[in-house]
Amino acid sequence: MSDHYFEDFCLGQTFLHATPRSVGEGEIALYLALTGSRHLLGSSGLVAHALGYPKRPLDDLLAFHLAFGKTVADISLNAVANLGYADVRFLAPVYVGDTLAAESTVIGVKENRDGAAGIVWVRSTAVNQDDREVLTWIRWVMVKKRVNTRDPASTAPATIVPETPPYVTPARLTVPEFLDARQFETSLTGGPRLWGDYRPGERIDHPAGMTLEEADHTFATRLYQNPARLHFDAHLMQDSTFGRRLVYGGHVISLCRALSYEGLENALLIAAINAGTHANPTFAGDTLYCRHEVLERWELPGRSDLGALRLRMIGLKNLPAAELGEVKPNGKYHPNVVLDLDYTVLMPK
Amino acid sequence: MSDHYFEDFCLGQTFLHATPRSVGEGEIALYLALTGSRHLLGSSGLVAHALGYPKRPLDDLLAFHLAFGKTVADISLNAVANLGYADVRFLAPVYVGDTLAAESTVIGVKENRDGAAGIVWVRSTAVNQDDREVLTWIRWVMVKKRVNTRDPASTAPATIVPETPPYVTPARLTVPEFLDARQFETSLTGGPRLWGDYRPGERIDHPAGMTLEEADHTFATRLYQNPARLHFDAHLMQDSTFGRRLVYGGHVISLCRALSYEGLENALLIAAINAGTHANPTFAGDTLYCRHEVLERWELPGRSDLGALRLRMIGLKNLPAAELGEVKPNGKYHPNVVLDLDYTVLMPK
Amino acid sequence: MSDHYFEDFCLGQTFLHATPRSVGEGEIALYLALTGSRHLLGSSGLVAHALGYPKRPLDDLLAFHLAFGKTVADISLNAVANLGYADVRFLAPVYVGDTLAAESTVIGVKENRDGAAGIVWVRSTAVNQDDREVLTWIRWVMVKKRVNTRDPASTAPATIVPETPPYVTPARLTVPEFLDARQFETSLTGGPRLWGDYRPGERIDHPAGMTLEEADHTFATRLYQNPARLHFDAHLMQDSTFGRRLVYGGHVISLCRALSYEGLENALLIAAINAGTHANPTFAGDTLYCRHEVLERWELPGRSDLGALRLRMIGLKNLPAAELGEVKPNGKYHPNVVLDLDYTVLMPK
Repeated sequence: MSDHYFEDFCLGQTFLHATPRSVGEGEIALYLALTGSRHLLGSSGLVAHALGYPKRPLDDLLAFHLAFGKTVADISLNAVANLGYADVRFLAPVYVGDTLAAESTVIGVKENRDGAAGIVWVRSTAVNQDDREVLTWIRWVMVKKRVNTRDPASTAPATIVPETPPYVTPARLTVPEFLDARQFETSLTGGPRLWGDYRPGERIDHPAGMTLEEADHTFATRLYQNPARLHFDAHLMQDSTFGRRLVYGGHVISLCRALSYEGLENALLIAAINAGTHANPTFAGDTLYCRHEVLERWELPGRSDLGALRLRMIGLKNLPAAELGEVKPNGKYHPNVVLDLDYTVLMPK
Repeated sequence: MSDHYFEDFCLGQTFLHATPRSVGEGEIALYLALTGSRHLLGSSGLVAHALGYPKRPLDDLLAFHLAFGKTVADISLNAVANLGYADVRFLAPVYVGDTLAAESTVIGVKENRDGAAGIVWVRSTAVNQDDREVLTWIRWVMVKKRVNTRDPASTAPATIVPETPPYVTPARLTVPEFLDARQFETSLTGGPRLWGDYRPGERIDHPAGMTLEEADHTFATRLYQNPARLHFDAHLMQDSTFGRRLVYGGHVISLCRALSYEGLENALLIAAINAGTHANPTFAGDTLYCRHEVLERWELPGRSDLGALRLRMIGLKNLPAAELGEVKPNGKYHPNVVLDLDYTVLMPK
Repeated sequence: MSDHYFEDFCLGQTFLHATPRSVGEGEIALYLALTGSRHLLGSSGLVAHALGYPKRPLDDLLAFHLAFGKTVADISLNAVANLGYADVRFLAPVYVGDTLAAESTVIGVKENRDGAAGIVWVRSTAVNQDDREVLTWIRWVMVKKRVNTRDPASTAPATIVPETPPYVTPARLTVPEFLDARQFETSLTGGPRLWGDYRPGERIDHPAGMTLEEADHTFATRLYQNPARLHFDAHLMQDSTFGRRLVYGGHVISLCRALSYEGLENALLIAAINAGTHANPTFAGDTLYCRHEVLERWELPGRSDLGALRLRMIGLKNLPAAELGEVKPNGKYHPNVVLDLDYTVLMPK
């Protein structure tokens, strides 16, 4: 059984996570139905093929959630919160028919001052059936200490806080070699703006909103075989601070990505997630909205067809993006802000 | 961006709609799970093959919703209501593995008297990856004028109301040539009544009911990549006339078709939708029921195995069909009637 | 139409159930999303292949629900309750691409004393496209008499109560010959305990809980094309004893199986269901928990790699398993107990 508490983690510890997962057309259809995504590569295998893909790829975030889900039983089943992400790199496409497995290594631990919990940093990596790395990421979570040893006087491990890169530099981004965006046409997405049309500093308040039901987020989270109990067990959660089930933060990211289609239609691929914070909890009944800020615009070495945009995705609940003031970096968040994600997309030039 | 208001439409204007969509086994399984459909061709690829299909086909309405969804971003994102359908013809099966794209031409425009909105008529056509037309339809929608120009004095386009055929005549129906219903047996569907057993004027009050949840209809509508905001954004809709999200009318049609299995088991294919009205809105929490009236019974030229039935589908909410009086054609609708659809099915003789 | 009441059943009567059903990757993905199952064979086609499977198999319970669903229109559309199961045997795997059909024979009838309903026993069998039996089971249901003949004085059929085996003996279990569990490693599931590590008399209180929504159980039940009205029609059910829709008991079994992963990770296959009772109704809003008791541990003839465990699955609502006292066999059930299922799994040695 994989039911780890804070005191069970130590630096350098590795986990081969259980239950390899095969993915197919069913997962793709479900992802569309859960998010309403219209992103081109997740929508059309035919277009993916025309752009050079040998097989139909999964949406990047779908692959991420499936890989992430594998790590939960060992790492975050007893987590209080997902605190952050860093250095998330999409290394290779995940295709229909692939089988994913994941492993993690503990790279940092830090006990809370109150001795009741602590922060664990892990580097996780997902591989496909050919043992090829498809995704790698660092995340840190706050994990409870074992209930019957929640004694502030219990021995704490030495604090190790790992250095995490503030963002994935362009040189470290993976761009599929076979991908040929010269075949891309804006009529495929309905979005006229290409890489060169976005300016750093620009803000896009996406107009669409999506209201979440309990059935939606639990369905998504079960699809990812993510067993974290705080998403599923209302009986348990009624005695928590929140009084109810929490929405899996990854589902919030996926919904914001889908909502941002109107304005970022040609953001074909996610190449990296640089940093991310779930600023406030999201619950069933909340309506999500999304804002984007363009942080940086990068040429990609050797590519005349594609460039990279570093973006800041702000997720909001119950407040359209256009009605929100400026969101300061690393500031105290407005109570309606639920997500602050720094990530990098690839877009045709 | 495709965010058109009434004043953006003009006669003859064409739209190549964005985001081609590949369809597979996942969409078929989801359609069954969303509707509970037991119609034979959508349930069994093996039987479809025995009846002559070269590959597993999608349910006709699933194909329709996917194709329809493609048109929404350009045509009806700002629609107040879907007013009607005409001349909807199913031209070729859509198969597992196909990729659908759609285009539309504006064939009519008429501003409302109050100058705040107007009606737009479009002819839309969906094609598969071989550029073969699989579906064509006319619909008309009421579209808002741009908020900040909602000035009754603004210039209105000349009114053009297109002629639409009252129904698709038998000669214009497409019957797949390969389909051989001589292989059909009533034990496959459990329904003993064939084409010759239905009489024009006959009424069938289907006994089954289906209660809708917000998660159900939003899931379906996202699957179809239909981005119309009034289905998804409860925050937006709380200030609307309805105070809440509206159910996509196409999902109502699909549920009524599924509910009508008990009584119309052998209505294998939908060949055309002749006309249709969403008589009243449907909301989560409503329980749908269905009545059918047999309008006409047509022989099909050159076919001894199949005939056509022109049917009237009445969708009801919160009132079993047997408890509803007569529904007059084109009359004022009973408040529990949500759908009045005139369509044509193919049934073995 | 297949709308049978108690007086329509007679001993020896057989039903070829309607609507064959093809199954694919979509059904597998949906089953994971509905249950959160992490059982190895349903999660990874690659692992299934490594263990000897020629194609990707469906989860045993998914196959059961699909086959069961076929029988409802003829047997239990007017059922008041599913009273019990016996001699449920999984005879062959169901694979992606298979098409299932089912038939049933009436093996017992017994009118209730009040003359308003009666119990019908049926033996049902599901076959695949090669006419190979994949599943067989006995169940008994209480079926209403036709409303307008609910006259206690109406003629009752002679009472025949069939003998049902108390459990499926080891000699009658089917173990796939190709299955080679010597290739199995506990790292695949994360569960260290194998067949020999479980002791008869042992109790496992699984910690995870799952709260059910109306959208969840209706989605599952529609996927199985199970048309029993009491799951779907809230308008109808508001006048019933329960005042609302009932959750399909099979969904409860699937959720309990998924919840029991933490503790029974290596219960790879279900070989038989020996007996089962839905002790109390389950409704949307309920949170399910699960306990297991190990009843027997059997060697399997000729197999050094696998053994069988006969288990008792107790499903609970709104009460974690650890907080429940002992559940006596065949006693009066605690009001929070919803399921008491006696079944047999195969587990690597």
